[in-house]
Amino acid sequence: MGRWQPDSRGRLQEAALALFAERGFDQTTAAQIAAEAGLTERTFFRHFADKREVLFDGGELLRERIVAGVAGAPPGDGPLDAVAAGLDAAARMLGEFRRDLSRQRQAVIAANPELRERELAKLGDYAAAVAATLRQRGVGEAQAALAADAGMAVLRVAIECWARGDDGRELTQVMRDSVAELRAVAAGS
Amino acid sequence: MGRWQPDSRGRLQEAALALFAERGFDQTTAAQIAAEAGLTERTFFRHFADKREVLFDGGELLRERIVAGVAGAPPGDGPLDAVAAGLDAAARMLGEFRRDLSRQRQAVIAANPELRERELAKLGDYAAAVAATLRQRGVGEAQAALAADAGMAVLRVAIECWARGDDGRELTQVMRDSVAELRAVAAGS
Repeated sequence: MGRWQPDSRGRLQEAALALFAERGFDQTTAAQIAAEAGLTERTFFRHFADKREVLFDGGELLRERIVAGVAGAPPGDGPLDAVAAGLDAAARMLGEFRRDLSRQRQAVIAANPELRERELAKLGDYAAAVAATLRQRGVGEAQAALAADAGMAVLRVAIECWARGDDGRELTQVMRDSVAELRAVAAGS
Repeated sequence: MGRWQPDSRGRLQEAALALFAERGFDQTTAAQIAAEAGLTERTFFRHFADKREVLFDGGELLRERIVAGVAGAPPGDGPLDAVAAGLDAAARMLGEFRRDLSRQRQAVIAANPELRERELAKLGDYAAAVAATLRQRGVGEAQAALAADAGMAVLRVAIECWARGDDGRELTQVMRDSVAELRAVAAGS
């Protein structure tokens, strides 16, 4: 049996984000990430299919949490209230991550067109899943699509705002404030 | 001088959409599109860089129209009112196209993950341009991002709804109704 490795996965993520920030995503290899984390390349590939997956790890689980939140909202809730319940679930999950690593992740993605496309595609997938869940709750097609897309806009904006971290608010609070902000924007104020 | 060709561009677009629908996007070549339109491959490449561009032609112009609409909204208008002015401009431009070709385009894109990513990236670009224009109007960063993203959700939903064409509404009307729907969703009804 090998030596016990405390949280190899977390160490690889931290090393990867540091190298992506320092050298750029394209110039960083899996071998370099493993070396930076003091681990073997084999260990890297036990945790991640490739270096891109370091950035998008957990996306499936997040989608499940969001959908479960929407599906579990009280039956009488309107579409945006149900979406807000899904966003609450997302914030509880993502708020566990380190804010500085989230900020690094955002910066790496913002600097790379392909990663930006992947991030948008991910949000598009979430929106489609949320819209489908809303339709199952009896919401009409156009309203479901609008509430889902607007909700994913809130998710993106709130995470960015929280990762920037210029105030003391937790992600759950930033998310709720952003939903309120969407309501204010839509009310035409 | 060559023979006069009435609207080669339009004929190529129509032929491309018909072939994409019939054979699939990946299985269609530029040469086949040109042949279907009764034109040469050289003529195809005079109009389009590749077959993908047939689907995304006009995207730059659309972005300019949207941004000009937002920038030109009365100074006192709130962020969503300004975005609605941009969407009006978009609807006036896109409403000129044939509804059946728009529907074919949507179906081709929906069937192909890469094209879906490109379409989302395009909407993401529009959203970024709209958010920047709103910030120039003095709108705060979070509100600008939310109004822009929500606006692009309206654009997507309204075009889909119009292209499906199950009622007699023009695109400009569908767009306005969709903005109203967004407001209703956000008001929590």
